[in-house]
Amino acid sequence: MSQTTTQVAIIGGGPSGLLLSQLLHRQGIDTVVLERQTRDYVLGRIRAGVLEHGFVELMREAGCAARMEAEGEEHHGVYLAHQGRMDRIDLAGSADGATVMVYGQTEVTRDLYAARDAMGGSVIHQADKVQPHDLKSQTPYVTYEKDGAEHRIDCDFIIGADGFHGVSRKSIPADVLREYEKVYPFGWLGVLSETKPASPELVYARHERGFALCSMRSQVLSRYYIQVPLTDKVEDWSDEAFWTELKARLPKEVAEGLQTGASIEKSIAPLRSFVAEPMRYGQLFLAGDAAHIVPPTGAKGLNSAASDIYYLYHGFLDHYKNGDSAGLEGYSEKALARVWKAERFSWWMTNLLHRFPDMSEADLRLQCADLDYLFSSEAAQASMAENYVGLPY
Amino acid sequence: MSQTTTQVAIIGGGPSGLLLSQLLHRQGIDTVVLERQTRDYVLGRIRAGVLEHGFVELMREAGCAARMEAEGEEHHGVYLAHQGRMDRIDLAGSADGATVMVYGQTEVTRDLYAARDAMGGSVIHQADKVQPHDLKSQTPYVTYEKDGAEHRIDCDFIIGADGFHGVSRKSIPADVLREYEKVYPFGWLGVLSETKPASPELVYARHERGFALCSMRSQVLSRYYIQVPLTDKVEDWSDEAFWTELKARLPKEVAEGLQTGASIEKSIAPLRSFVAEPMRYGQLFLAGDAAHIVPPTGAKGLNSAASDIYYLYHGFLDHYKNGDSAGLEGYSEKALARVWKAERFSWWMTNLLHRFPDMSEADLRLQCADLDYLFSSEAAQASMAENYVGLPY
Repeated sequence: MSQTTTQVAIIGGGPSGLLLSQLLHRQGIDTVVLERQTRDYVLGRIRAGVLEHGFVELMREAGCAARMEAEGEEHHGVYLAHQGRMDRIDLAGSADGATVMVYGQTEVTRDLYAARDAMGGSVIHQADKVQPHDLKSQTPYVTYEKDGAEHRIDCDFIIGADGFHGVSRKSIPADVLREYEKVYPFGWLGVLSETKPASPELVYARHERGFALCSMRSQVLSRYYIQVPLTDKVEDWSDEAFWTELKARLPKEVAEGLQTGASIEKSIAPLRSFVAEPMRYGQLFLAGDAAHIVPPTGAKGLNSAASDIYYLYHGFLDHYKNGDSAGLEGYSEKALARVWKAERFSWWMTNLLHRFPDMSEADLRLQCADLDYLFSSEAAQASMAENYVGLPY
Repeated sequence: MSQTTTQVAIIGGGPSGLLLSQLLHRQGIDTVVLERQTRDYVLGRIRAGVLEHGFVELMREAGCAARMEAEGEEHHGVYLAHQGRMDRIDLAGSADGATVMVYGQTEVTRDLYAARDAMGGSVIHQADKVQPHDLKSQTPYVTYEKDGAEHRIDCDFIIGADGFHGVSRKSIPADVLREYEKVYPFGWLGVLSETKPASPELVYARHERGFALCSMRSQVLSRYYIQVPLTDKVEDWSDEAFWTELKARLPKEVAEGLQTGASIEKSIAPLRSFVAEPMRYGQLFLAGDAAHIVPPTGAKGLNSAASDIYYLYHGFLDHYKNGDSAGLEGYSEKALARVWKAERFSWWMTNLLHRFPDMSEADLRLQCADLDYLFSSEAAQASMAENYVGLPY
């Protein structure tokens, strides 16, 4: 068995793990990233595209913001379509000037890989059978297999940034871990197409037929979603059927200008709220999807992972630079406080915009009243805006 | 059959009907109020005690505010107890300086009766078999019986302020009326006692055992509530059992100082959201409980009735003084827009603070996150405050 040593072993080579690795490396803190898949596989995942201003700041701090700032689009507002109207939340006006950046997760990951390559960062792909060990000791380690050979990494700390299905959370004893889960009775059917976005800003639509979302990755790459029953299969939805249903849920002014085209990706994702507590067990720290999942409404998934990384980054800085471990000690509590607020927001926005199967006529009217109140109240709009651009870390 | 004539016949001698009668009389517009019960019966009803600032203004406009301003208590804040903490919403600070007035509905009604008496207003009690007629004509009338004799009142308009069970809403044809209803799976057990209030300001408590509320009518009259299952009977709750359960749901600092005593009233009320649309049919205008019910969380019942009265008062002023009927024509739409926002707020606050039988552990955590977010956000507190003191008419 080959044996290496690092300070922070990071399980998971998605954006969270890469971002932490990059941030720490720039501060002279050594890391190794282990990723089960190939780089191409990781880059093939189609995910979020709306980045909170705090995430953008972290990318700057990591020295990875150049392409994002050139090619990404800063959005100052977001539309909510409801009851035949298009209402806008003025993000920049309501939340101390903060905005969001539209830039695909795939591009973020690509930029982080490029930065890791440029610095000679250690990112090991196709690491099989990854397993963290001795989490409660001061000398934890991680084992894995690659190309048939066994490897061991000794380290000070282990980061579990390996997603919902990863090994990290499962390494915390069941009697320590508490899991909270809420499953929503519908999914999102998403389509990616090389078409001009229907609207310069995102449009979240509440409609009697169900929720719809017009999003984008760039001016030539659009991402659309419609709420569908969990029983629907993606193969039952032709491109044509998708576009027809999408248009039926959008205000006329948006539907009429909608450019359709062949889908280059089409998939159905379930909606779920999930939180695991605590986010720290001994020398293992969970981050991102390994510890929490939000429904996609409001785009808090990747952004919540980024806030974990923020707390971890500053915790490690304090630990290694100042010998102060308070940040790491308080990590779980601090990260969870913000995670639950993101869960709250995603749940609120999901409730605000979706058609639940068991909604009565009174529930539907209350949902409309919620939207009417939102657009009659500066305070309510400010509350939505501050959540959408990202609550303070 | 005796026959009289008035401009506005008001069915229902509760606070809404009396307030409108008083406001119109002072402007030289003639009214007759018909009440099925005796005055003592009406004054015996124990109801709300928190008045929005707009309601207070209307009482001033009606010339009925003197005793309220002397004996009522202006409240600048309200407490929410949760997770062992007491957090305060600063009403005056968050909502343009507006506050609420704590003054019992019974006292409001007493003051309105006194004012009607002083002006020689026509308020007919024990009016039996009240029935509005010819609502779609320009010559509607109301019939009723009193002391065995039949009476008829010819009028320009009829106001249905006769509560949820009254005849007015039932006089609107079923094919015109749409009703929205939401029943909550619990009730409120309320106790009135001649004791000093537990807290100088109201305390709304979210607790794992269920919701509790410390309210008051004056410094020597307290009103407390606890959430109970709908299957509970009031006779199964001794005073002692009530106080014990109430204290168990309150923060220690409140429970310890709680003065207990004999209940002078004890009852269980169900929680319901109800709205009937439209609020106008021909010459009949519905107001208050006749058209809408809110769950009591947030004290929007009487206050929503007052906003109907505000719109009606100004509609009649325009009609009789300026020959402009636009206010009356637009009454239903304007009143309903505000009613639905009050319904929304009461529903939100009920969801925020109650224990629903079907809540999962995740739901409970989301509820705590909702409270945590509220007290971390100035915008969210401002939103709650503007609703609590009353949205603009």
